[in-house]
Amino acid sequence: MDSSLLPFFQPKGVVIVGASTSPEKLGYGVARNLIQSGYKGAIHLVAQKSGEVFGKHIHTSLQDIPDPVDLAILIVPTQATPQSIEDCAKRGIKAAIIVSAGFREVGEEGAALENHCVEIAQKHGVRLLGPNCIGTIDTHLPLDTTFLQPPMPTQGGIGFISHSGAFAAAIIDWARGQGFGFSRIASLGNQADVNETDMLPMLAEDASTKVIVMYMESISNGKRFTQAAGEITKQKPIIALKVGRFEAGQKAAASHTGALAASDTAFDAAFEKAGVLRAETAEQMFDWARALETCPLPKGNRIGILTNAGGPGVIAADSLEHHGLVLAQLADATLQALSAILPSAANTHNPVDMLASASPQTYAECLKILLNDKNVDAVMIILPPPPMFKAEEVAKAVNEVIEKFEKPVVIALMGSTLVEGAGNEFREMRVPTYPFPERAASALAALVKRAKGAQSSAAASWTHLPTLQHKSSQSKVSRLWTPDELMQAYGIPNAPVKLATNESEAVAVANELGFPVVMKIASPDILHKSDVGGVLLNIKDTAALQSGFAQMMARMERLVPPPRIDGVHLQRQVAGGQEVIVGMARDQQFGPLIMFGSGGVEVEGLKDVAFCLGPLNQAEAGEMMRQTWAGRKLKGFRSIPPVDEEAVKDVLVKLSQLAMEHDEIEEIEINPLRVLAKGAVAVDVRVKFKGE
Amino acid sequence: MDSSLLPFFQPKGVVIVGASTSPEKLGYGVARNLIQSGYKGAIHLVAQKSGEVFGKHIHTSLQDIPDPVDLAILIVPTQATPQSIEDCAKRGIKAAIIVSAGFREVGEEGAALENHCVEIAQKHGVRLLGPNCIGTIDTHLPLDTTFLQPPMPTQGGIGFISHSGAFAAAIIDWARGQGFGFSRIASLGNQADVNETDMLPMLAEDASTKVIVMYMESISNGKRFTQAAGEITKQKPIIALKVGRFEAGQKAAASHTGALAASDTAFDAAFEKAGVLRAETAEQMFDWARALETCPLPKGNRIGILTNAGGPGVIAADSLEHHGLVLAQLADATLQALSAILPSAANTHNPVDMLASASPQTYAECLKILLNDKNVDAVMIILPPPPMFKAEEVAKAVNEVIEKFEKPVVIALMGSTLVEGAGNEFREMRVPTYPFPERAASALAALVKRAKGAQSSAAASWTHLPTLQHKSSQSKVSRLWTPDELMQAYGIPNAPVKLATNESEAVAVANELGFPVVMKIASPDILHKSDVGGVLLNIKDTAALQSGFAQMMARMERLVPPPRIDGVHLQRQVAGGQEVIVGMARDQQFGPLIMFGSGGVEVEGLKDVAFCLGPLNQAEAGEMMRQTWAGRKLKGFRSIPPVDEEAVKDVLVKLSQLAMEHDEIEEIEINPLRVLAKGAVAVDVRVKFKGE
Repeated sequence: MDSSLLPFFQPKGVVIVGASTSPEKLGYGVARNLIQSGYKGAIHLVAQKSGEVFGKHIHTSLQDIPDPVDLAILIVPTQATPQSIEDCAKRGIKAAIIVSAGFREVGEEGAALENHCVEIAQKHGVRLLGPNCIGTIDTHLPLDTTFLQPPMPTQGGIGFISHSGAFAAAIIDWARGQGFGFSRIASLGNQADVNETDMLPMLAEDASTKVIVMYMESISNGKRFTQAAGEITKQKPIIALKVGRFEAGQKAAASHTGALAASDTAFDAAFEKAGVLRAETAEQMFDWARALETCPLPKGNRIGILTNAGGPGVIAADSLEHHGLVLAQLADATLQALSAILPSAANTHNPVDMLASASPQTYAECLKILLNDKNVDAVMIILPPPPMFKAEEVAKAVNEVIEKFEKPVVIALMGSTLVEGAGNEFREMRVPTYPFPERAASALAALVKRAKGAQSSAAASWTHLPTLQHKSSQSKVSRLWTPDELMQAYGIPNAPVKLATNESEAVAVANELGFPVVMKIASPDILHKSDVGGVLLNIKDTAALQSGFAQMMARMERLVPPPRIDGVHLQRQVAGGQEVIVGMARDQQFGPLIMFGSGGVEVEGLKDVAFCLGPLNQAEAGEMMRQTWAGRKLKGFRSIPPVDEEAVKDVLVKLSQLAMEHDEIEEIEINPLRVLAKGAVAVDVRVKFKGE
Repeated sequence: MDSSLLPFFQPKGVVIVGASTSPEKLGYGVARNLIQSGYKGAIHLVAQKSGEVFGKHIHTSLQDIPDPVDLAILIVPTQATPQSIEDCAKRGIKAAIIVSAGFREVGEEGAALENHCVEIAQKHGVRLLGPNCIGTIDTHLPLDTTFLQPPMPTQGGIGFISHSGAFAAAIIDWARGQGFGFSRIASLGNQADVNETDMLPMLAEDASTKVIVMYMESISNGKRFTQAAGEITKQKPIIALKVGRFEAGQKAAASHTGALAASDTAFDAAFEKAGVLRAETAEQMFDWARALETCPLPKGNRIGILTNAGGPGVIAADSLEHHGLVLAQLADATLQALSAILPSAANTHNPVDMLASASPQTYAECLKILLNDKNVDAVMIILPPPPMFKAEEVAKAVNEVIEKFEKPVVIALMGSTLVEGAGNEFREMRVPTYPFPERAASALAALVKRAKGAQSSAAASWTHLPTLQHKSSQSKVSRLWTPDELMQAYGIPNAPVKLATNESEAVAVANELGFPVVMKIASPDILHKSDVGGVLLNIKDTAALQSGFAQMMARMERLVPPPRIDGVHLQRQVAGGQEVIVGMARDQQFGPLIMFGSGGVEVEGLKDVAFCLGPLNQAEAGEMMRQTWAGRKLKGFRSIPPVDEEAVKDVLVKLSQLAMEHDEIEEIEINPLRVLAKGAVAVDVRVKFKGE
């Protein structure tokens, strides 16, 4: 952790520059919140006019402030902000929260002023949070540097980093209504200095923070974020809501891989790599966070459902399957124990339906039986208003059981006024509740995913690049290298392509390679050769080659505008096996994205592809293959014989290494990679260097 | 509407059989609710013991009850229920709600008792709701025949049919907390007599019901439901939550089509056919219902977003795209009008960001400008707690604008305590609010889908079977017909297949068809011929045919167990064009499901297929093609030339007619259908008759 950021959450003393006695001013709100937060350090107020607010004297100069003071909250006119930073530096304050707006977000002039602030801050070693932010909150210290309407959020274990102040403010109010709390909150504003990745360790190393949630509109440095988040998720879960998924303008791309590797794909791959759980919606992010904050992690994905009504039980079972979880197969002993206490019309098989008559004791006893079953990794209790009992009595009874086990239990607490008391009981015991089984299932799925991620070795792969033997890993490759040379340098088997500039050269080359051969037009102007009749397959002899050469050249002459023709590329025809596509597109933010899937000309139409952020290990390569039909088919399907899966993994890992070691390569595409019974051969390889 | 069902919602007089003076008894709760509901008809109480409850006398015999009385609520011991039904009939009561449980749901004995009840009821013409149900509610009449905790649900326009009493009870309580109401509610219980399809018209023809929501665990008669729902959705929206999506046991199937047409696919297709909106979750069902209840339908899918903060605006834009809606391109006049009233740093382009300083008046004026734009079909307003103003003032201001326009406006009301007042304002004006933009976007998408469905001619296709000229539509086809004969009867172009029982016959047939030919093994024991080497393509002459015949027979002799061999099927080879699969699988409940998609052996792996419930019209056939890559590709893609789309539509419609007219056919699969530049040819056709 960067100790220069400590004052934002653990200041020794805080000064509010721009404190106000007028309740409608932000400077009043900040003073009120800081003083009422219970913050135990020194609190100082500064404004142009002397006075008093909340029993505190308002100084007129920063230089008058006594020690200790190491954090300033600046609520001064936009134009006065640079001077304020200077003043902070002069007073020895090395951290400032700039609440004021009117900077980069309003246009060029504001951006210039913001840059000026950063220059001054950097000159004096002052760290800036904001501008245009609402500051920080720590409910445990406690500390509140915001101007938000009181009360402060309640204490909790969720740490929250937000690129949007308005979103943070709305969430804080919403959380109050939902009955959950936070540990630390940081609103980042324009991120003139401190960004989301800088802030992560401040939450990761905070003992009160059990789970980190991030509302992200952008990324400051993709590689740095992925690395930092990947380290943190080894210890603590991170959930991200990344907005801006659908960007109107997709970048122009030179290959299928490039076209398919949209910016959001890179975020998906980066989150996956770093073990960050990506939420689809704001509600989902906090549904997951509440479970991760309080529940032990499950050992597997086998879920027991306990309900007093069939319908909601079916909804729950559906949702489990939808989220990739499974209904636990209850042990015989469990079934017998349930039978012993439930009426004969009850269903003792999972979902366990105790019937509407279920008492608080029945709920508790059945829960205990389920949690004692080794086939059950976690339990969802469904609690609609019980017709004969009070829901809060059920809550009390099951809470006593839950706290005795190290297995996660979540509650689908269905209803409103009739289950309010139960909601309070669960809240007090920190058992997460959801209004419907579908959301409870989603939370269980997040627990399972987190449990897997926390164990998986993928998180550890960061520091262990797969080590391969190849001749060029130490030296830069040159853009003069042919794709064939690149493949050979990294040990990716290929069918070499030879250029022939005229017919007689073509005949000579083909005889050297051995028939049958494939002939493709060689032109810098033709990207998709088969589209223009520039590919001829299965040429069996010299005569066929000669007539094919003539016809192809004739076709090229008819193209408008006429392409430059270097000649033809000849290659020995590799037959049999299965065809897949393997590619790499370098994302500006995150680095090489490796792609695998169904190849051919239809790759963009079928979209049967998976991506993974490099560097790739064998396990990750295998995972990509499992995600696609092209990959699953390698094992053989119906009349299609199995082929060499390991060879594909090998190519993927080598391609990743090539990409990691050679920044100057922007895109690589092997389409097809022909996978044989033994081995795989790169048949058509295209490489795009930076600036091409 | 079946008038025998009228007493369940519009009784002239109600008798409670099994009324009780003990507050813990259901018979007490039903009496309390019925009396306190404000029901204006006659209310009578019957029990074994005379007495008084809620100021009403309790009679000891049904026969003592004076007129009017046409509905009985039976809360009697399970065993006594048949007698109670008899008594009702004797007293002239033709409708009974059986609240008691202990019937079909507890096992065989209960089922027998339930059947007995139905027999008695049918003998006397008594209609039954339940058993094991919570009855009916009409908030407008008003009427409450349930025992649920008071108060009754608030009045609203949502009609609710539920297969689960517990789910209905939980939803009623939840709705109370969410602040929305219902028109009519029916809990169906075991559906011994009245089922979900019977009940539909009771809500469809109720003027207070603006939208119908259905919680479904099963279907009583698929075809009848689809037909009935399809008629209703021409007037009124229906939303269904069908649970039990994931059924462990998939039926065995003889074809790809059969294997892919799982039971839930049939539900999807039936809902689509009937114009029923299928919700994924309970929460979504009511999110949609609240919008459909109160909003005018949009003319298109172009949405304007009005926000006072950028972040939530981006979330909203993402969600719109996710749901297939588009950000409206604002007209120049709109941009100018917005510029005139917003600060220069505001964003006048959609999403319109008014900045945090936006006042209630700014919200209202901007909303008016957006709603006046012809490019805007609907608006989402995002309202997090405004930093400088009260949210309820914003609500009041925008409500005045909303009521002046015939365009839907939904609110993402983000927060809790700080936006509570605003929530009340919107509720009063019947403007739907959602806690997050994602849910507001989903509701807008439901409005757009409903608007499209209400206009589309698909709903009308029910009564207009496509009329085709073919020779056999009046007569039954025979299972002795070959697939070729079936294709020819329905005008589906095919490449006839001829059987040859030995080599010399094969040579004669091939010469008759003309080379090149395809030869396939003819055996009742071999389903997937290519899997066992039973297919030989591109046979160019007699010599190749002879050697191929010998080799194929040799391969068959090696199979274990040895298959019965009828000979070989010969067919003229159809080359070029694109291959697709077209199939039909008859669903037990819903009838013929027509399938279209990517064919070949990989059809089950790729899963690039779409289904539609027959009968199919040209528009529906086109829609299926748009849903799959195989269909989109027909227009041509890169080096793949375009082929005859219309010919495929024609085949789909003809296949649908064949299926509609011949119940005795269970599955048909054309794989491949070869689509040429002009026309399409069924190359391999398999037909499975019932009982095969």
